[in-house]
Amino acid sequence: MSVRPRAAFVSIVRRVNRVTAAELARRYRGGDLSPVDVARQALELAEREQPRLNAFITLQPDVAMAAARESEARYRRGEPLGPLDGVPVSVKDLVHMAGVRTTAASKVLATYVAGEDADVALRLKAGGAVILGKTNLHEFAYGPSGDVSYFGPTRNPHNVAHIPGGSSSGSGAAVAAGICPLALGTDTGGSIRIPASLCGVVGLKPTYGRVSARGVIPLSWSLDHIGPITSTVEDAGLALSVLSDFRMPDLELGRPARVGVCRELLFEALEAEVRSLVEAALPAVGEMREITIAHMDATSAQPVILGTEAAAYHLPWLNERPGDYDPTIRARLETGLSSRGVDYVQATRLRGLFVEAMYEALNDLDVLATPTTPIAAPRFGEVQTLLDDGSSRNTAGLLLRNTLPFNLCGFPAISVPCGRTVAGLPVGLQLVAKPWDEATLLRVAAGFERNRPAA
Amino acid sequence: MSVRPRAAFVSIVRRVNRVTAAELARRYRGGDLSPVDVARQALELAEREQPRLNAFITLQPDVAMAAARESEARYRRGEPLGPLDGVPVSVKDLVHMAGVRTTAASKVLATYVAGEDADVALRLKAGGAVILGKTNLHEFAYGPSGDVSYFGPTRNPHNVAHIPGGSSSGSGAAVAAGICPLALGTDTGGSIRIPASLCGVVGLKPTYGRVSARGVIPLSWSLDHIGPITSTVEDAGLALSVLSDFRMPDLELGRPARVGVCRELLFEALEAEVRSLVEAALPAVGEMREITIAHMDATSAQPVILGTEAAAYHLPWLNERPGDYDPTIRARLETGLSSRGVDYVQATRLRGLFVEAMYEALNDLDVLATPTTPIAAPRFGEVQTLLDDGSSRNTAGLLLRNTLPFNLCGFPAISVPCGRTVAGLPVGLQLVAKPWDEATLLRVAAGFERNRPAA
Repeated sequence: MSVRPRAAFVSIVRRVNRVTAAELARRYRGGDLSPVDVARQALELAEREQPRLNAFITLQPDVAMAAARESEARYRRGEPLGPLDGVPVSVKDLVHMAGVRTTAASKVLATYVAGEDADVALRLKAGGAVILGKTNLHEFAYGPSGDVSYFGPTRNPHNVAHIPGGSSSGSGAAVAAGICPLALGTDTGGSIRIPASLCGVVGLKPTYGRVSARGVIPLSWSLDHIGPITSTVEDAGLALSVLSDFRMPDLELGRPARVGVCRELLFEALEAEVRSLVEAALPAVGEMREITIAHMDATSAQPVILGTEAAAYHLPWLNERPGDYDPTIRARLETGLSSRGVDYVQATRLRGLFVEAMYEALNDLDVLATPTTPIAAPRFGEVQTLLDDGSSRNTAGLLLRNTLPFNLCGFPAISVPCGRTVAGLPVGLQLVAKPWDEATLLRVAAGFERNRPAA
Repeated sequence: MSVRPRAAFVSIVRRVNRVTAAELARRYRGGDLSPVDVARQALELAEREQPRLNAFITLQPDVAMAAARESEARYRRGEPLGPLDGVPVSVKDLVHMAGVRTTAASKVLATYVAGEDADVALRLKAGGAVILGKTNLHEFAYGPSGDVSYFGPTRNPHNVAHIPGGSSSGSGAAVAAGICPLALGTDTGGSIRIPASLCGVVGLKPTYGRVSARGVIPLSWSLDHIGPITSTVEDAGLALSVLSDFRMPDLELGRPARVGVCRELLFEALEAEVRSLVEAALPAVGEMREITIAHMDATSAQPVILGTEAAAYHLPWLNERPGDYDPTIRARLETGLSSRGVDYVQATRLRGLFVEAMYEALNDLDVLATPTTPIAAPRFGEVQTLLDDGSSRNTAGLLLRNTLPFNLCGFPAISVPCGRTVAGLPVGLQLVAKPWDEATLLRVAAGFERNRPAA
């Protein structure tokens, strides 16, 4: 007797799995789907996937169901609050929500309960979103793999022997597993785009400063960005319009995109399968032009800035409770603590050169296109990865190589799935646009999404 | 036989002494004064005052006379280049001029000849200014007194036993002595406003970024400002319109200025005579309101930022030729070298708080008014100065106390003479306005200049 309901449940879950925020809102308005039913199914799937994926640190079923009931009442009155009303959403556990713990996946904050909502939490609530809970992450967002968390590692939904990418690991996994169409991430060196790439979903790092960082635990405030992980480009745009004052544009570019490709560095050495998938996908983006970016070596400034700013934030805890950090995180912070003032200053000068070089490079282009990550999701414990130039390189460094330059310059960037390896692991294409021009970024990304080889 | 010409010369000099750039340009246009005669007299006075004041490091009589002849020809054709055409100008020896040495008053650069013009030098030349030469300064602009220079100290024209203030010491002395109506200065903690205050002239630090710093040897690039020292507010505005894209406004505010006075800190303890002169002058500025500025303690960030950025710039020379620095300058740079990355980062965070507090404080005001310096020009060698609260404090720290906060926030500020002590030493009033609102700053300053007690 219990088999049939269970089977029915699974099939509903599979359907929700493919449903976008845009489609949910359409169907809520049409009355053929209920925010309360969708929230219940999302919470059930979150619970069910938790042992396999460990995507969540905290679930708040009662709060979520209450929000869903309020949303349902609004739709009945014909007064939804916006494109995310009634949409299940997950929030990286680096973002404060009043009355809920913010752990940053650390022992340091394992029992810390926030007193106030972050600006982005306020915006989600004001937009009627149904917040399921707080997602797992790399401890204090300081790592690209997602396998270091006081609450245990998150696993990749496509193959649990592989990492999900980080630091927004739980957000990437939750969207990829179909638990919710939208999850919030943060991105200081690639932490939205890397899990999006490795989990086969869309990750948008907006222009630096577009989305308020108030109430989000910083990793490095001059490099931190907040943005959405979704399953479509349209949902990323809708989310950005709720998270900031960005106005959702129509997603038609109306002409071929002008696409810059910088082979010398961003394509330098890749996993062989990543190269063939990205090269095959590029023509679907637009008209390609080979470009060079001056001062790419200036991106060496990013780890200096990140390390120093992170150490400045963590200084009191490093002194008072060093044993509460994972040893790998503490070691990174102590390296940052040892950087000199003059090193930081020189890094900010290099940063200025790189920003100028990026303006120059994108001058008559719509976007720059790169592989988001040079490699598909590594296995847990993999420290070196073999590339197509025969070299074997540090895996964590590879994960960050193509994303961190765009934190340094603050330009908006998005990762869109562009295929899967033979083993079924997703590969992402990264597009980068000019500051404040997310409209063009989303248009080109949406065009690629329509035209790309089957992902 | 030689007495009469000399007497005549002196009287001409006395007249030139009181002539402003605005008046020179009017009289050049009217044809009753010649740029060539004025340039010759200015060069003669510069030479004559050199043993007394030591205001110049380099004079370029031939270049200046050639420029004056070209200017004269333009006026004859009725085609002057702008408000500074034919006006004698001096340039702080931190500013590159192609083919002329830039010493920064240091042994390190004593023989360095610049290959290119700084942007401000290009603008002066394009505007037809007659550049007399390069003025003395505190070595590498790193001090507020003007008594440390590889080329010997500059002296205060009002009393050569007293310092002129720095670091733009020669620029302040040259204008105060009537050698030229305009001299360029730079200001990282007060280096335009302090010599203006101590020498009884006008000094304008524009909004950070208003005037290009390209081609000017940096002290601390996030704090460095370039601006004019003049004898009137009008001339400061005309100069700014040549040095940048600022458009000279009419100088009528047309209503009483709303003037904020922050007594708790900026008037905290002063030399007794400075207090009485400034208090007597304040009503001539406008309608006063007591205000407080939050986070005034955040101004402790300024020396950290300055020291670290200066050390970053000087690092190669500090390693290669430490003996070529004055020991006091080297000691300051070594202090900056010892600051940690996290200290600099914390300083930039404090800076952000102070900027916000300044916006808040000036929200419904036209200007903030303070004494420019809490003290009149100290004697050479004075290390402690007695204040009206009975305390005796470090003289260099006092000179910077009221000016450096406005480098930290980058708001425009001007020093205007507001009287003299019984001993005949000038005292300056500082006005501060909102970013990019030099028009209001100049209007309020010009109104004060008309209404002030006799200076």
